[in-house]
Amino acid sequence: MRAFEFLNKNKDQDHGKLGITMVLDKGLSPEFLKDYLKVCGDYISFVKFGWGTSAVQDRDIVKEKIKIYKRYGIKAYPGGTLFEVCFSKGLFEEYLVECRDLGFEALEISNGSIDISLKDRKEVIMEAKDRNFTILTEVGKKSIEEDRKITTSERINLINQDLEAGADYVIIEGRESGKSIGLFDNMGNIKVEEFDILINSTPIEKLIFEAPQKNQQVYFILNIGSNVNLGNISYDDVISLETLRRGLRGDTLGKVNI
Amino acid sequence: MRAFEFLNKNKDQDHGKLGITMVLDKGLSPEFLKDYLKVCGDYISFVKFGWGTSAVQDRDIVKEKIKIYKRYGIKAYPGGTLFEVCFSKGLFEEYLVECRDLGFEALEISNGSIDISLKDRKEVIMEAKDRNFTILTEVGKKSIEEDRKITTSERINLINQDLEAGADYVIIEGRESGKSIGLFDNMGNIKVEEFDILINSTPIEKLIFEAPQKNQQVYFILNIGSNVNLGNISYDDVISLETLRRGLRGDTLGKVNI
Amino acid sequence: MRAFEFLNKNKDQDHGKLGITMVLDKGLSPEFLKDYLKVCGDYISFVKFGWGTSAVQDRDIVKEKIKIYKRYGIKAYPGGTLFEVCFSKGLFEEYLVECRDLGFEALEISNGSIDISLKDRKEVIMEAKDRNFTILTEVGKKSIEEDRKITTSERINLINQDLEAGADYVIIEGRESGKSIGLFDNMGNIKVEEFDILINSTPIEKLIFEAPQKNQQVYFILNIGSNVNLGNISYDDVISLETLRRGLRGDTLGKVNI
Repeated sequence: MRAFEFLNKNKDQDHGKLGITMVLDKGLSPEFLKDYLKVCGDYISFVKFGWGTSAVQDRDIVKEKIKIYKRYGIKAYPGGTLFEVCFSKGLFEEYLVECRDLGFEALEISNGSIDISLKDRKEVIMEAKDRNFTILTEVGKKSIEEDRKITTSERINLINQDLEAGADYVIIEGRESGKSIGLFDNMGNIKVEEFDILINSTPIEKLIFEAPQKNQQVYFILNIGSNVNLGNISYDDVISLETLRRGLRGDTLGKVNI
Repeated sequence: MRAFEFLNKNKDQDHGKLGITMVLDKGLSPEFLKDYLKVCGDYISFVKFGWGTSAVQDRDIVKEKIKIYKRYGIKAYPGGTLFEVCFSKGLFEEYLVECRDLGFEALEISNGSIDISLKDRKEVIMEAKDRNFTILTEVGKKSIEEDRKITTSERINLINQDLEAGADYVIIEGRESGKSIGLFDNMGNIKVEEFDILINSTPIEKLIFEAPQKNQQVYFILNIGSNVNLGNISYDDVISLETLRRGLRGDTLGKVNI
Repeated sequence: MRAFEFLNKNKDQDHGKLGITMVLDKGLSPEFLKDYLKVCGDYISFVKFGWGTSAVQDRDIVKEKIKIYKRYGIKAYPGGTLFEVCFSKGLFEEYLVECRDLGFEALEISNGSIDISLKDRKEVIMEAKDRNFTILTEVGKKSIEEDRKITTSERINLINQDLEAGADYVIIEGRESGKSIGLFDNMGNIKVEEFDILINSTPIEKLIFEAPQKNQQVYFILNIGSNVNLGNISYDDVISLETLRRGLRGDTLGKVNI
């Protein structure tokens, strides 16, 4: 039972997850995780071992961490950059086998740093799906210059193609910083016009918006709802995000339907 | 005994607390806390479970954390936003009972996100004081636009009224970011003129300045003294703040009387 | 064995340290450290107990932490500011004895906040070297105004003099923020011209660049190499830095020779 339980009128709704929260793990230790998840494990759906960080950690530690997350129903996956490194070296099969062996339940397919043809992208999604991984794809480039070249309609087409190919969710790139990429300008503010076109042409419940900054989380919650799917949340902002979703912080107090 | 003890000439003064340090807890785990407080528990007077974060944590965890803080003489209290949510829903009595049950020793009374009449504010302070809580009130609004409307003389009047009504301390709003609110401009710099008027018209030992940024902590220490009361300190900046108070960091070295 | 071991073609090189990583410890707890180092202890060469933070921590805790670091071959040292405080009070001998008693294996000699004559600086380096400490010196001032007065050729002369006097490494000041100091402008970007002159006139393998920001780490890696020596790395960025060194993050993917 939560503290201040009397605030929760509708027990069922209040205790379910409000939208997907995807957390960025940059190298947390197993013991730290065990205690940390006691506090906020119930609010997390996915955890990303950011970019190639899993490849510089000990195998046994990665396995142990994935197991700890699993106890809370949290699906772990390696960052898309690691997929890209392996794919570009012709090691996709080795990648799939190692992900399975380590215990990862989800995979991210992306082209943030390398070029992949639309045909290859589709095949990769289907191949990974066949191996029973939950598939998240990502739309966007890591380089500011490269990302700028993608038009909004290209983003929309890619999102819809990925979903048709079997992707479970599509992540809208925001990086760890939340600046100058995808829907964000160089101050981290949302490009409202592009955002509006995007959400009107895609199934929003299938999108996960990377939103590391509080003002971004507030924007998505106020404009889409408390159940919006958000990603790249810093591990120590999970409780804060949950209060934003529930109108328990000044920024959303009295402005959300919960 | 501290390391480099030979630096402390005046043992008594050097080991007492230098002003109040109020830390912001956004969801730390109990086990983490136990170890963390071994390092810096002696430097903390109050801990705030930020805004409504206590209401999305498990009841037993909140109780355990409050107990751990208590071992170091640290008084815990829920953020003012949670009081505001409960007060605006007519649940103030339930709020007081739950705070007592959970073990909170202090309370924050604020109107950062809602409107409360001066009369109600006074009554609430007295009611909470009657229940033997240490009372901290807060002056300032969470919204930049709303906060701008408050004149310096209105802030001063509210501070003095709160103290007359029985508040133990008055917090000067700074938020977690320390920007665009209260005494801070949009870069987080101190508005010097307003600051000077404020401290000349209020009992400064009763004020706690929210100062999450290092440059703000340095400003208050150099302009008020090492024993200035500071709040919204990030948990991992407590040791750093103590070095600033004691002239053990470049920013205050040779500039403080200790 | 690391996860995704198949990515490491050249086992020996891939598992050795790539350049020095010096981490900033602002007051981590011993228990936290034990778990943390299981994840990234192999990537760290030095840890700095920032500025005077060791002097506000309990003696037994400082000793315990140094021992924990030692198990991973990590040499601990107190920040240069603490040396400066002691030196300016005529307590240099007491400082050396206490550092030895606490277990510190390295020392930092600096003049970031006080003035020390070139002659005294040289003697201090030789004296500390005689006591078998690894010696790191630092070039740069804590104050933006003071730091600006140092010309690039003065920095170069000081670096070379320190090395001749017996310093093992020379640190290029960047502070915790990485802004407006040394090689960084007020946005944290590298002053390219000064950087080029500096590295052409000094033995680069003896320099440690304080580079707390990711864009700074990327710049040094792309312009010097994966084995560049970097300092003031936040404890939770060590794994991220290792991925940058190894081309496992978008910013350096395909751009490093490893």
